[in-house]
Amino acid sequence: MKKFEEKTLNRKTIFEGRIINLYLDEVSLPNGKTSMREIIKHPGAVAVIAITEEDKILLVEQYRKALERSLVEIPAGKLEKGEDPRESAKRELKEETGYTCESLEQVTSFYTSPGFANELVHIYHAKGLKKEKELHLDEDEFVSVMEVTYEEALNLIKEQKIYDAKTIYAIQYWQLLKQQ
Amino acid sequence: MKKFEEKTLNRKTIFEGRIINLYLDEVSLPNGKTSMREIIKHPGAVAVIAITEEDKILLVEQYRKALERSLVEIPAGKLEKGEDPRESAKRELKEETGYTCESLEQVTSFYTSPGFANELVHIYHAKGLKKEKELHLDEDEFVSVMEVTYEEALNLIKEQKIYDAKTIYAIQYWQLLKQQ
Repeated sequence: MKKFEEKTLNRKTIFEGRIINLYLDEVSLPNGKTSMREIIKHPGAVAVIAITEEDKILLVEQYRKALERSLVEIPAGKLEKGEDPRESAKRELKEETGYTCESLEQVTSFYTSPGFANELVHIYHAKGLKKEKELHLDEDEFVSVMEVTYEEALNLIKEQKIYDAKTIYAIQYWQLLKQQ
Repeated sequence: MKKFEEKTLNRKTIFEGRIINLYLDEVSLPNGKTSMREIIKHPGAVAVIAITEEDKILLVEQYRKALERSLVEIPAGKLEKGEDPRESAKRELKEETGYTCESLEQVTSFYTSPGFANELVHIYHAKGLKKEKELHLDEDEFVSVMEVTYEEALNLIKEQKIYDAKTIYAIQYWQLLKQQ
């Protein structure tokens, strides 16, 4: 997997933040030339495909400052340091939707933006959903929960309210489940 | 779409690079409190699902410095300033694989990491593929082209050589095409 390896000649730390770090790497290319690479380090994230007994998917609407608008997404959150992704997925599902689940099946994992960032998202399918009473949101978290049918989800994609990789993947996964 | 809007109180420019910019925004939350948001601005990207007459998908292996390893991905590249995404997709397909196409159908677009970045990827399905003679790679670009069957693609996912959002989405899209 080291094909075309770019060796680090020098790394400059530009920013170390609460969520992301930014580094500027000087690298030597396979042809011996040098180039610069702008690199974001991110702790990784989890996301949950949760479909209720009424065949509705749980979605959350929240504001995304990077886009200056809100998006409708599957429940998700970044990994806390040292946290097991499965535990993180259970926690985010409960915090953001008020639902618990009996089991979580791993569906896939993917890097979201390998061109500049190392964010890896683990996607789980939650089974045996059960609605608890209260939501447990972080102090700075403002989300509204939705339960939508497959057709409603397709409309949300058409309206570009669902507009992110993990959620569009999740709806496509749901389509495949329906065809089984 | 301005639900739960976070108003910008102050923006600090941390870094302006060749590909990404990093800003640190102080925002006012819906409850009146303030918080900080780490924001990456990215020009956006295109990616191409290209399946040959022999029912093989075109993939490229390249080194990803952010991951310190190579990945196998569908042909893709970032948008040049002011460039039409469709033209960009044609250009990247030709540059990275040596193939041209008769037409491009838009499949979907998605934000890759809405939690911290505004990178939007446009995904096209290339039709009427034709192999040209030469590859036209950028000077700093080292890729190897692969043509793989659906079953080989599934194995590449299992081996985590295919491991990024757009390519895993593309293989799932191919699965749906096969079921039509």
